[in-house]
Amino acid sequence: MALNIVALVGGVGGAKLAHGLAQVLPPENLTVVVNTGDDFWLHGLRICPDFDTVMYTLGGVVDPVNGWGVRGDTVAMLGALQRYGETPWFRLGDQDLATHLLRTEALRSGERLTTIMQRLTKALGIHSSILPMTDDEVSTIVDTVEFGRLSFQDYFVRHRWQPTVRTLAYDGVERATVTPEVVHAVADADAIMIGPSNPWLSLAPMLALPGLRDALLARDIPRIAITPIVDGKAIKGPAAKLMAELGYEVSAQSVAEFYREYINGFIYDQVDIHSRRPDMRHLLTNTIMQTDADRAELAQQALMWIESELL
Amino acid sequence: MALNIVALVGGVGGAKLAHGLAQVLPPENLTVVVNTGDDFWLHGLRICPDFDTVMYTLGGVVDPVNGWGVRGDTVAMLGALQRYGETPWFRLGDQDLATHLLRTEALRSGERLTTIMQRLTKALGIHSSILPMTDDEVSTIVDTVEFGRLSFQDYFVRHRWQPTVRTLAYDGVERATVTPEVVHAVADADAIMIGPSNPWLSLAPMLALPGLRDALLARDIPRIAITPIVDGKAIKGPAAKLMAELGYEVSAQSVAEFYREYINGFIYDQVDIHSRRPDMRHLLTNTIMQTDADRAELAQQALMWIESELL
Repeated sequence: MALNIVALVGGVGGAKLAHGLAQVLPPENLTVVVNTGDDFWLHGLRICPDFDTVMYTLGGVVDPVNGWGVRGDTVAMLGALQRYGETPWFRLGDQDLATHLLRTEALRSGERLTTIMQRLTKALGIHSSILPMTDDEVSTIVDTVEFGRLSFQDYFVRHRWQPTVRTLAYDGVERATVTPEVVHAVADADAIMIGPSNPWLSLAPMLALPGLRDALLARDIPRIAITPIVDGKAIKGPAAKLMAELGYEVSAQSVAEFYREYINGFIYDQVDIHSRRPDMRHLLTNTIMQTDADRAELAQQALMWIESELL
Repeated sequence: MALNIVALVGGVGGAKLAHGLAQVLPPENLTVVVNTGDDFWLHGLRICPDFDTVMYTLGGVVDPVNGWGVRGDTVAMLGALQRYGETPWFRLGDQDLATHLLRTEALRSGERLTTIMQRLTKALGIHSSILPMTDDEVSTIVDTVEFGRLSFQDYFVRHRWQPTVRTLAYDGVERATVTPEVVHAVADADAIMIGPSNPWLSLAPMLALPGLRDALLARDIPRIAITPIVDGKAIKGPAAKLMAELGYEVSAQSVAEFYREYINGFIYDQVDIHSRRPDMRHLLTNTIMQTDADRAELAQQALMWIESELL
């Protein structure tokens, strides 16, 4: 019997782990819970960057170079926006727009984000569950030295995560409700995996969601995290820069410490053999997922470790 | 001094006349008032087919083959919709989407259609005024023998105007308000021109708008219409078929009769020299606009006729 796994993930890095798990688990045994703190409104459309990245990755239509967006997508709409004097700063591909249009139309008609995205993921041939952490709006706000409070995409895309971060806030998270689908998946899980996503930008909004935090802490099961920091550097994106700005030592160990309350196991990259926390169960393996096979291999290693040592 | 002209138009045929007028009049002397009875909601977007056709034509970006849509546009978004199990029946080009997104976003924020479209037309370098007949929603409904009541685009696009029409209705038109911009343009006009658009589908919704009808009838100025019927056939679209179904003789004369209350002059095509109404002032000229020069020539002929004989 395969384990029931709930993976908590953000965008590109987490999507790779989710894809690895999807390769080695029966679809009914995998639930991917996705951060929605990056979601925002643009041109009247609800954009869910992390969710769509995971969906496109598991659906096999993701752009293999960027790791997000649709493979071979064009930007004719963005070009036409410029004709109207707009200065597009967020890439909305033409194929990608179909997702935003269907989602937004259904949201406006009163449907829940969860059921909308279940329909769309199913249509893309995805049989695992991909769930937004909440149907409510939560907005990650980045307080920066240079510009003050920025909305997440302002910070991340418009300013290319170059401003210096002072603090982070997750607007609306305290009032947001975890969905019954997420609660059910966590209650049913044999183990929880936190993906190698950005702990502060992708995971913290999820762990700040009261209902999700409580559901996780209530389960006496293996709860592990996979490091996004290898050899003191981020695999991708602003994780290392952000850690330094927030006053953390930039190391996998710091990440394990950040997750301490939520996990009872941690996967370090094999290069970090000397930086392990002695007081937490851990696995050393290759965590860098360059190929589809790397993703499946990491997922398999994590599952074997859980089965053999943590259950 | 150039005359102030208000042209009342629908889609492709009317756009050609508007383009002809734009070629021969100073921009401040031309106001094009456009039917909005064809407008509808699709995927959460407000689509204004007639307005956009006129805007793209005057902006020089229209698809020269179809006469509507943006030249060289692609349909990547529509392709992606199909991936989600949708069956697109209305062509939404990728560049075209920029128009719908900006319009819909501004409408949702409470801005009037008129001022939104003034912004967009100006951005496309159009200096003449293009005005929707109203900021309110009016919906042309086609009652058909085969399918009962159809919304306009259902009839026109999905069913390719093949159903047999029993009657037409313009839902909402009695409660709709003509805009101050349209009232002002009509009050300021030296002459009114009704374009060679479909009298029942494009012009009748405008003439059914109480404020517009009253404004037109209040002006004792040349008010002329250009025939959409040449030699007993429609230049384009369902005009001839529809006339027959509604019980009219299919002729330019029938169109002149239909407009009788609103006009004091009518332009026939030169081939219809034998079907003129004897009791109305008229001009015989080439009304078929195949080239940009044909458009300018027809506009020039109409203006000269107005100046020399109708004023």
